[in-house]
Amino acid sequence: MNVDGTPYRTIWPAPDGRAVEIIDQTRLPFELVTRRLETVEEAATAIRDMWVRGAPLIGATAAYGMALAVRDDPSDAALAAAAERLTATRPTAVNLRWAVDALTDLLSPLPPEARFEAARARAAEICDEDVATCEAIGEHGLELIREAWEGKGREGRVEVLTHCNAGWLATVDWGTALAPVYKAFDAGIPVHVWVDETRPRNQGASLTAWELAQHGVPRTLIADNAAGHLVRRGRVDLCLTGTDRTTASGDVCNKIGTYLVALAARDNGVPFYVALPGPSVDWSLESGDDIPIEERGPEEVTHLQGRGADGRVQRFEIAAPGTDAANPSFDVTPARLVTGLITERGVAAASREGLARLYPERAR
Amino acid sequence: MNVDGTPYRTIWPAPDGRAVEIIDQTRLPFELVTRRLETVEEAATAIRDMWVRGAPLIGATAAYGMALAVRDDPSDAALAAAAERLTATRPTAVNLRWAVDALTDLLSPLPPEARFEAARARAAEICDEDVATCEAIGEHGLELIREAWEGKGREGRVEVLTHCNAGWLATVDWGTALAPVYKAFDAGIPVHVWVDETRPRNQGASLTAWELAQHGVPRTLIADNAAGHLVRRGRVDLCLTGTDRTTASGDVCNKIGTYLVALAARDNGVPFYVALPGPSVDWSLESGDDIPIEERGPEEVTHLQGRGADGRVQRFEIAAPGTDAANPSFDVTPARLVTGLITERGVAAASREGLARLYPERAR
Repeated sequence: MNVDGTPYRTIWPAPDGRAVEIIDQTRLPFELVTRRLETVEEAATAIRDMWVRGAPLIGATAAYGMALAVRDDPSDAALAAAAERLTATRPTAVNLRWAVDALTDLLSPLPPEARFEAARARAAEICDEDVATCEAIGEHGLELIREAWEGKGREGRVEVLTHCNAGWLATVDWGTALAPVYKAFDAGIPVHVWVDETRPRNQGASLTAWELAQHGVPRTLIADNAAGHLVRRGRVDLCLTGTDRTTASGDVCNKIGTYLVALAARDNGVPFYVALPGPSVDWSLESGDDIPIEERGPEEVTHLQGRGADGRVQRFEIAAPGTDAANPSFDVTPARLVTGLITERGVAAASREGLARLYPERAR
Repeated sequence: MNVDGTPYRTIWPAPDGRAVEIIDQTRLPFELVTRRLETVEEAATAIRDMWVRGAPLIGATAAYGMALAVRDDPSDAALAAAAERLTATRPTAVNLRWAVDALTDLLSPLPPEARFEAARARAAEICDEDVATCEAIGEHGLELIREAWEGKGREGRVEVLTHCNAGWLATVDWGTALAPVYKAFDAGIPVHVWVDETRPRNQGASLTAWELAQHGVPRTLIADNAAGHLVRRGRVDLCLTGTDRTTASGDVCNKIGTYLVALAARDNGVPFYVALPGPSVDWSLESGDDIPIEERGPEEVTHLQGRGADGRVQRFEIAAPGTDAANPSFDVTPARLVTGLITERGVAAASREGLARLYPERAR
C-alpha cells in the first residue's frame, strides 16, 4: 500500500540483489525507518526483536533469511544452522517454520552453487504468493463491504471496526483484515475504520492507525473499551479482525480483546468476520480451548512506549509503582460468535463443515 | 481507608474552617498530594479537571463548593451563579446536580448571614452520609463475597474483577464497588481483585491498584482486553463495578468498557453486580439509551500520563501522530446483564420492581 503516496511492501530485495530490505516496525508510528538485512543473523534479529511482525511477514523474512545464509556459504552445514537459527526466534510462529522447511526442502537436493539463486527466487515467490492470498481475501471481503454499503442504501459510509493490526504491515502487502478495507477504499466505497488501540502493545494505535492514514483511509482511534458502546449505538456495520490460529471447528485465537468485540457484535446483531489465509487453519485442533495462550511480561501492562515532550521515544511507567500485572496475549473467540471466515477462496462458515467446503483437500 | 497505615478520607474541611482539602487524584499514583480549595471557582476546577472524580465525591465537592461560594458573597445572585458554575463542570454526574440542588434548596430560604454556616454543616453531613451509605453497601456486598467463598468450599480465594475506580477514592470513604472487597478483606476472607486498567484515563491502573495496595488487598492489574479471557477461563467469581447513573429500570451507565465486562460475565454465567448509593438512581429515566454520553477530548486516547526514565511525570504521545480519536466516556449496560444492584438498603434486582421494593418512597 502507499506511504506518503509511494507504494511500499513491508519487505523487498535490495537493488544489488545481495540483501533484503524491511520497514523497522519498532520505529513506527513516529518514524519510517527502513533497514538492510545482510545476513541470516540480521534476519533472525529482525524477527526476534519484532522489527517485522505478523505471521505472513515473519514467514517471508525467514525465507529471505535462508537465502542470505546460503549466499556466502551454500554448504549443507550452513543451511542447517540457518534453519535452526531462524526457527529459534519466535518458536510459536507457524509461518516461520513453514517457510524455513520449504526453503530447506527446496535447497537440500540442489548443488551448492545453485542454492542462492534458487533461494532468492523462492523467497520472492513466497512474498508474491502472500500478496496474492491477501489480495484475494480483500476481493472476497470487498463483497461484504459492498453488501453493507448497498444495505445502507449507499448513504453515509460503511463503518468497520478492527482490533490489533492485521493490515499490510502484518503481511507483505494488503493485509488480511484490512485488505477488504483497502479494496473498498480503492473501489470508491466510502469506508471508515474504528481502530481499537489494542492494549497492551497498542498495535492499533501505532500500526493500524498509521497504515490507514498513509493510504488515506478515514479512521478514528478508540480505546478498546469504546468498542462495545459504538457497536451498541449502531455506529458499526461490521467487525473485521485477523487471527493467529483458527481451529478446524472455526474457533479463533487472536489478540487479547477480540472475544469482547465478538460478544458486543453478537449482542447487537452486527456481523463479526475474521480474515485469514486458509493455510493458517490448524486442522489438528478442534477446540480453541486447547490452544496454549502466551503469557507475556507484566511490564507490557505497567509500561508503555511513547514520545515525550522532548520528542524522544521511550518507555514510561503508567501504573501504580510496584503493581503486579497479568498479561495473556491472546484470547479465543468461539466459532458460535463468528459470522464468517474470509479466506482467499471465499467466505466460509466458522465450522468444520464451512471450512471443509473451501478446503476439501485438507479436511479429510 | 488507610494510606501507608494512616486513615484518610478523600475530602475534609480545612482546620481553619474557611476552605476544604482534597487529595489531588491527578497526581496519583506517583505522588500523594493534597490541595486546599478556597473558592467555588477552585471547587469547579477540581471537579472539571478531575482532581476529584467519582460521582459521590463529585457531589461532596460540589456541596462544599456551594459553601465556599456563600462564604464571601451570600447573596441570591452568588448562590445561583455558583449552582450554574458547578453544574456545568461534568454533564453526566447525577450526584453533582443533586448536591447543588440540595444546597440551593437549603440555603435559599435562609437569611444571607446564616448561609455559610448552614452550607458548611450540610456539606459535612453529606460527606458523613456518603460514608455511612458506602459502608452499608459494603456490608450487603460482603454477604455476596461470603457466599462465593462458601460456594468454593472455602478453597483458594474469591476472585473479583472490577472496572475503573469505584473505590474509596471515588467516594468520601469505603467506595461503592470496592466497599464489599474492603469489608471482606477486613473480615479475613481471602479476596483477590483483577483490576481493569480502564483506558483511556487508566483509573484502574493509577487509582484502584494504588488504593488496594495501600490497604493491603491482593490485586493484579490487567489490560481491559484481558477481562473476557479471564472470565472465560473461570478465573473470576464475580464482577463488581460502580455506576455513574442508574435508570429506574436498572440500566447502568458507567465508565466506558463496563458493558463489555457485563457481556463476558453473562456469556460465562459469572455474576455481574453493580454497587450504588440509592440516590444515584435516576427515577426520571426509564431507558439507559436516553442518558447523554459525555464525549471527552481525543488527547486522552492519543496521549497518556506516565513517569519517564528521568522520574518526571508527563504526558506522552502513544498513537500515530495526527490520529483523530473518539472518546466516549461512559457506556450503558442494560439491566438484563446485571445480576443485582448492591445498595445501602440491600441487593435489588436490576428492574423497576427490584428497585421499587427497596425504594418505595421514590418509585411512586
